[in-house]
Amino acid sequence: MSDSIITRLDASQSDFNQRLDQLLAWESVSDTRVASVVDDILHQVKTRGDAAVVEFTNKFDRRTAQSISDFVVTPAQLQHALTQISAEQRAALEVAAERIRNYHQHQLQRSWRYTEADGTVLGQQISAMERVGLYVPGGKASYPSSVLMNAIPAKVAGVDELTMVVPAPDGEISPMVLAAAAIAGVDRVITIGGAQAVAALAYGTETIAKVDKIVGPGNIYVATAKRAVFGQVAIDMIAGPSEILVVCDGLTDPDWIAMDLFSQAEHDEQAQSILLCPDADYLDKVEESIRRLLPSLARESIASVSLKNRGALIKVADMEQAIVVSNRIAPEHLELSVADPEALLPKVRHAGAIFMGRFTPEALGDYCAGPNHVLPTSGTARFSSPLGVYDFQKRSSIIMCSAAGASVLSKTASVLARSEYLEAHARSAEYRIID
Amino acid sequence: MSDSIITRLDASQSDFNQRLDQLLAWESVSDTRVASVVDDILHQVKTRGDAAVVEFTNKFDRRTAQSISDFVVTPAQLQHALTQISAEQRAALEVAAERIRNYHQHQLQRSWRYTEADGTVLGQQISAMERVGLYVPGGKASYPSSVLMNAIPAKVAGVDELTMVVPAPDGEISPMVLAAAAIAGVDRVITIGGAQAVAALAYGTETIAKVDKIVGPGNIYVATAKRAVFGQVAIDMIAGPSEILVVCDGLTDPDWIAMDLFSQAEHDEQAQSILLCPDADYLDKVEESIRRLLPSLARESIASVSLKNRGALIKVADMEQAIVVSNRIAPEHLELSVADPEALLPKVRHAGAIFMGRFTPEALGDYCAGPNHVLPTSGTARFSSPLGVYDFQKRSSIIMCSAAGASVLSKTASVLARSEYLEAHARSAEYRIID
Repeated sequence: MSDSIITRLDASQSDFNQRLDQLLAWESVSDTRVASVVDDILHQVKTRGDAAVVEFTNKFDRRTAQSISDFVVTPAQLQHALTQISAEQRAALEVAAERIRNYHQHQLQRSWRYTEADGTVLGQQISAMERVGLYVPGGKASYPSSVLMNAIPAKVAGVDELTMVVPAPDGEISPMVLAAAAIAGVDRVITIGGAQAVAALAYGTETIAKVDKIVGPGNIYVATAKRAVFGQVAIDMIAGPSEILVVCDGLTDPDWIAMDLFSQAEHDEQAQSILLCPDADYLDKVEESIRRLLPSLARESIASVSLKNRGALIKVADMEQAIVVSNRIAPEHLELSVADPEALLPKVRHAGAIFMGRFTPEALGDYCAGPNHVLPTSGTARFSSPLGVYDFQKRSSIIMCSAAGASVLSKTASVLARSEYLEAHARSAEYRIID
Repeated sequence: MSDSIITRLDASQSDFNQRLDQLLAWESVSDTRVASVVDDILHQVKTRGDAAVVEFTNKFDRRTAQSISDFVVTPAQLQHALTQISAEQRAALEVAAERIRNYHQHQLQRSWRYTEADGTVLGQQISAMERVGLYVPGGKASYPSSVLMNAIPAKVAGVDELTMVVPAPDGEISPMVLAAAAIAGVDRVITIGGAQAVAALAYGTETIAKVDKIVGPGNIYVATAKRAVFGQVAIDMIAGPSEILVVCDGLTDPDWIAMDLFSQAEHDEQAQSILLCPDADYLDKVEESIRRLLPSLARESIASVSLKNRGALIKVADMEQAIVVSNRIAPEHLELSVADPEALLPKVRHAGAIFMGRFTPEALGDYCAGPNHVLPTSGTARFSSPLGVYDFQKRSSIIMCSAAGASVLSKTASVLARSEYLEAHARSAEYRIID
C-alpha cells in the first residue's frame, strides 16, 4: 500500500521469513572514491604529521590554525564550558555520568591466578590500555551523551590518557560536548576531525601520541579511515543504523509504545522500529497512535520515512513466537513491554540491550540508566557486546612452573612437539625434565 | 657483519631505539591478485552454495567429491582416529586437553545484576555464541595443539555447534588432528579449506549453517577471506609471525636459553627471537651455545635464517631497562628467566603471555600448561588478549526500571534528549514521569 504509514506483517504468513529478511536487509555502502580520498589523507598524515593535520583541518573545517596547538582545548576552556550550559543541563550530565560510572565499575575485570598442587601458578594479569582516542562527530550529530558513554568506561578501566577529537567547523563547538568531556574526565580535547584525526591518533604525530584503540562514531570518511587503520590500532565496531524491537503483551498504553518506536525512528531515515504483539487489535491501536502523534513530532519528516520504509507492526501467535522472531533479528535494543519480563528473559539469546517492563523505555538507557548506549547493530548482537570497561582492558597469560611441575609438563609437551615436527620445542621442554 | 649468526645490540647505544624499530618492523603483505581470487570464490560460494564449495575443493585439493557429504568426517571416523595414533600421543593429547579445559574454565564469565534502592535492576546477561567455525590448516601446518587451543575455549563457553574445517589435499588428513578434534569435543568436521571454506562458514550453504564467528590460522587466502567477511561474522585476530622475548639475569644455563630462542626461530623464517640481559659475558655464552647447538636442529635451515634476519641478543643496563624495552616491544611471548620473576611482573604492561622463572619455557605454554597459545603478535598485545572463553561469549545489557526509578530517571533523560534535539526520546521518557 503506497499510503501505509508502517508495514503490517503476520508471523503466520507463509512468506513471513522472507518478508522479514527484506525488511531487515541493510548493507553498508563502500565507496571507492571515499576510500581513495581517505587513503591519501592517511598517507599524508603518516608521512608529514602535524603539518598535514593542520592543512586538512584548515581546509575541511574552514579553520585558520598555524599549528596543532591552536586546536587544543585548554583545561580552562573545558572548565569554562561547564558554566556555559544551564544548571539543569549540568545537573543532568552529572547525574548521568555518576550512574554510568557506577554501572561500569561492575564490569571491571581483575587479575586472577591459582596454584596447583606442585606449586605451578597459572592465571591472567589484566591491565588497562595506555592510550585511547575518542572520536566525537561535529555539528548536529555531536551528542554529549556519546561522550559520556565512550569516555567513562575507558577511564573506569584505568586508561592513562584519553584523547578526544571533535571537529569544530568554522571554530564552533557545542558547550554541552565540552562539558560532557570535562565531567567524564577526558584528558585532552583537540578540535580536529575526519580521516585526518583518525590518522593522527593511529600513527601519532609530533604532538599527538599514537593511541592503542580508537572508539566513537563518525561519518563515512571516519568509518573508512577506522577500518583502514584496524590492526595498526584496535577499533570499536563500525555501527549500522540504530534499531529497536518492542515486544508487547498488548497491555501498555499504545501512545507509550508509539513514542518508543518514534524515539528510534527520529534518529535517521535508515533507523528501524519494529513492534511484535499477539493481539491484532492492539496493533491497530498502536497504528492509530502513530497516525495521531507522528504529526506532532519535531522530527516528523525523518521519523515518517524511517517508519514507512523500515518499520513494522507484526502480529505473532504468542510470546513464545515473539522471542523466536526476536532472536532471529538479534536486535540492538529489545524492549519487553510486558507484565512479567523476567519470564521471557531466559529465552532471549541475542540482543544488545534488554529493556524490561513498561517503565523502561529505550530513552532511559540512551542517557542515564547506567548501561552503555553503544550497542551492536544489524544483527551483530549474535556475536558482539555493548561497549564496556572490558573493551579498554587486555589480558596477559601468567605461567610460572615449579621445577616439579615443569618436569611433568615437559614430557607431555615433548610428545606433542615431536608429533608436530617441532624438535626445538621438544628439546627446550626436555631440558626441564628432572628425573 | 655478514657472517654474524645473530644481531648484537646495546640499549645504551644512541641509535638503539631506531635499530630496535628496524628489527621489529614487519608488515603484512596485501596482494591484489590474492584479493581478486578470494573475492571471486566468496561470490561463487555466496550465490551457488554447496555446488561451488564442491567445485573449488575438487580443484584445489585434488578431490573427487560428488557432494558436500563426501567431505564430512563421520563421528565413527573421528573416533577411529583415536586408535590410529600411538598410546603415548593419545595420552599427551588427553592430558593437554584436560589442563587447557581446567584453565579456561576460570575465564567463564557469568551474568550479573544488582538492584537499586528504588527497585530498579541493572546488569548484564552473558551467553555463548550459537555457532562457531574453526579453521585448521592442512599439511605440515596442521597442528593438533591448535585444534585443542581453539576448540576447547569455545566448548567451555558453551557454543552449541562448533564446526571445524580442514583441507585434506589428495584426501589425506592427519590422524592427530582428527584425534584432537574428537578429544576437544568438536561437533562436526568437514574436510574443506581455503577461501571456499571461510565463505561457507560466513554465508552458510544448503548443508553448512552460517556461523557467528570464525577462528583459527590460515594461509594468505584464508586470512584475506576472513578479513573480507569481517562484520558479516566475527573473526579472531589475523596473526603475524610468532615472537619470543627472553629477559634473563644471566644465571640460567645458556643452552636452555639458546634452545628457548630456537623454539621460536624454528617456526618460520619470519619468526623473531630476542634476548635481553644486563650481563655481556652471558650474552657471549648464549651466542656460543647458539653456534654449537644450531647445527644439531632438525629445522636448522629455518631457524638460522630467522635468527640471522630477525633475532637479537641485547645488552641492557639492568632489569629495570629490560622491562622498559619489553613494554616497548609488547611481545607475544615474554620469558622472565630470572630468580625472582614476581618482582618484575607488576612492571610488565604489555605481553601476550608471561613465562615466569627458569622452569617455564614457552614450549610448555604452547602445548599443555593450560593457557592459550593463540596470542597477540607484532606489538598488538598493547590492545589485544590471548584467545579465551570470553571470545565466544557475548553480553546483553539488562535494564528493568521500577515505576519510581523510571520517574526519576526520565527527568534526567528528558533534559539530555532535548539538549540533543531528540524530542521523541524526551517524550517517550516523560510518559513515565509519575508526579
